Amino acid sequence: MPNISKRGQILPASPIRKLTPLADSAKKNGIHVHHLNIGQPDLPTPEIALQKLKAIDRTTLEYSPSEGFLSLRQKMAAYYQTLGVELSPSEIIVTTGASEALLFGFMACLNEGDEMIVTEPAYANYHSFAQMAGVKVVPLISKIENGFALPDIAEFEQLITPKTKAILVCNPNNPTGYTYTKEELLKIRDLVKKHDLFLFSDEVYREFFYSNEKHFSSLLLEGIEQNVIVCDSFSKRYSECGIRVGALISRNKELLATVLKYCQARLSPPLLGQIIAEVSMDAPKSYLESVFDEYIERRNLLINGLNKIDGVFSPMPNGAFYTIAELPIDDSDKFCAWLLSDFSYENQTVMLAPATGFYSDQNNGKNQVRIAYVLEKEELKKALKVLEEGLKKYKTMING
Amino acid sequence: MPNISKRGQILPASPIRKLTPLADSAKKNGIHVHHLNIGQPDLPTPEIALQKLKAIDRTTLEYSPSEGFLSLRQKMAAYYQTLGVELSPSEIIVTTGASEALLFGFMACLNEGDEMIVTEPAYANYHSFAQMAGVKVVPLISKIENGFALPDIAEFEQLITPKTKAILVCNPNNPTGYTYTKEELLKIRDLVKKHDLFLFSDEVYREFFYSNEKHFSSLLLEGIEQNVIVCDSFSKRYSECGIRVGALISRNKELLATVLKYCQARLSPPLLGQIIAEVSMDAPKSYLESVFDEYIERRNLLINGLNKIDGVFSPMPNGAFYTIAELPIDDSDKFCAWLLSDFSYENQTVMLAPATGFYSDQNNGKNQVRIAYVLEKEELKKALKVLEEGLKKYKTMING
Repeated sequence: MPNISKRGQILPASPIRKLTPLADSAKKNGIHVHHLNIGQPDLPTPEIALQKLKAIDRTTLEYSPSEGFLSLRQKMAAYYQTLGVELSPSEIIVTTGASEALLFGFMACLNEGDEMIVTEPAYANYHSFAQMAGVKVVPLISKIENGFALPDIAEFEQLITPKTKAILVCNPNNPTGYTYTKEELLKIRDLVKKHDLFLFSDEVYREFFYSNEKHFSSLLLEGIEQNVIVCDSFSKRYSECGIRVGALISRNKELLATVLKYCQARLSPPLLGQIIAEVSMDAPKSYLESVFDEYIERRNLLINGLNKIDGVFSPMPNGAFYTIAELPIDDSDKFCAWLLSDFSYENQTVMLAPATGFYSDQNNGKNQVRIAYVLEKEELKKALKVLEEGLKKYKTMING
Repeated sequence: MPNISKRGQILPASPIRKLTPLADSAKKNGIHVHHLNIGQPDLPTPEIALQKLKAIDRTTLEYSPSEGFLSLRQKMAAYYQTLGVELSPSEIIVTTGASEALLFGFMACLNEGDEMIVTEPAYANYHSFAQMAGVKVVPLISKIENGFALPDIAEFEQLITPKTKAILVCNPNNPTGYTYTKEELLKIRDLVKKHDLFLFSDEVYREFFYSNEKHFSSLLLEGIEQNVIVCDSFSKRYSECGIRVGALISRNKELLATVLKYCQARLSPPLLGQIIAEVSMDAPKSYLESVFDEYIERRNLLINGLNKIDGVFSPMPNGAFYTIAELPIDDSDKFCAWLLSDFSYENQTVMLAPATGFYSDQNNGKNQVRIAYVLEKEELKKALKVLEEGLKKYKTMING
């Protein structure tokens, strides 16, 4: 029996998935598990999109163009115009989720052995796609004390080597919910320009931006137009993660031509998903507004609730639907597993994502967890109570 | 402006796509282009699947499990049982088309620098996925004289080095339409076993098998159960390429666990496509029978028609919906471009795929083209006439 590849062996399994069997077995024992661990929006997909499904009138569900339907890309260009970003449809390539945009972007821009600086905690799958492309992720730790703001540019400078070819930012950030300011992005711009790097900007949570400033897309950064690659997605914005439609956006023609070759290899992004994505952009303004209002209320409820629990600290994130909170625990992997395997309060428990999975060095994040607020407010309240009781019991247990 | 990656620079553009602008401009000039170049079935998707779209009753189009819905995998297992293949649903991982199954399979099995022997002419995108995984494709030429049958095993043996880690077969074959016999596959089995290789078996055209023997899946090969990886797809079988649903099948638990990690990184295969795929398997038996009958009639019409044209030879393929034909031409790239840019007959022309794109060494296939029969019979007749006239005119032109 031949061996699995070395890269396959070292690819980390998803930190959350390791907990899934424990959650399943808790459920089998009749315990209600509040899922604070996932990034799956619970809100409805726009009604207009669900209706469109019933009106699809095709006899053959055929391939679409490798770069995605022109009509979809035109509509996306019109959307970016509302953000102040001028793009032609040819600068937008439709991908199978933002995941594929990341993979093809890394493949097209980076050589094996090249380095990419990523602020951490970071979305764990960046590592997977970087590893597929043979790219080394160089982490730069952002700190909970200042709400996971951009580290000092001097810290980036210290990490730059002749192998450094890219910086990746996620704005708004998963898992921290931090939203980068225009000033921070201008500093990144200067650094990118100085060292002639690629800048990957993951903006899939763009619409979930609760600060008074407007979201500042990396596509607005002047002077590095040829360096910026934006990943976007319909998944979170319209609660339609299952359609698998995202995009890679760039103004670099050579880069676009190269990404297109990768897209041609996989033939076509999902046909049905593209139809849904296109019509979702016609959802009434009230749809995104109500989603936005709902997330703000949940955020306030969650963060205020967390900070009332003894020994817990969470910054107030201004974006996405996550926060990284510090808990009075020794080992977040152990604690999150324990909550599922050995704890319940009034027949409930909570599933959290250990923050160790969002750091390259798993000695980081040992007292942090990621909490997503994709649950209704009443559920969130219950989950907070359960977490509080869990922490009390865990403390007693640890202290003997 | 930073440079594109080296691998991105050398990734070949699709050979067919290079001709697309020429076809577009012929159409603009009012010329009808008969598309013999594509692998996009023109037949209808099963009615039951199209109806299902209208009956999808969900409020959130959410992620599905990374490995695909259990209900879909159970139904696939039942389908394989009808082929004599016993599988548990856990041995089936749903992928975003067979394309993703190939990529993740290569990533999981092969190290950078490993070699994979592929008989040529071969599906061009194997090269793209191999290149993404850093794998070297070692071609072994099959010959038109014997209908592109499996080359002698001694020829495989000659290519085996310490770096050889896999063999890839496509059965029925794209682009040749050749169907491997059980005897040929048993020879491959012995070779795979002797050198402890992985065997990738691309069986997406399995249902289009016109020989009197039944299709023999590599999953039936005894003694190499841990070595075989089958790629499958709903695209061609049910004329639903756009749903982007395929599968990777293996009995090797370590391999499955590794592929699952890649699947988790990209979160989820398409939700809507999986719903369509699952219900497509409920299409009445008459659906696949009528598709089968239609392709056989087209095949007979096309191949007999080709062999009547002066200087043209095509073997009679027993599977898929392609053939590789030899034409009396000097350079298939030039000829295929000329047909679009400089030729028409009664205001029509034909678009063919130059066979050079299916060989690693583009000195091969210079007098060959791939012809797909995904056109109605009346169209095929017209296309044959146009090709005949084109060859006459090209000959006159070449000979001065």
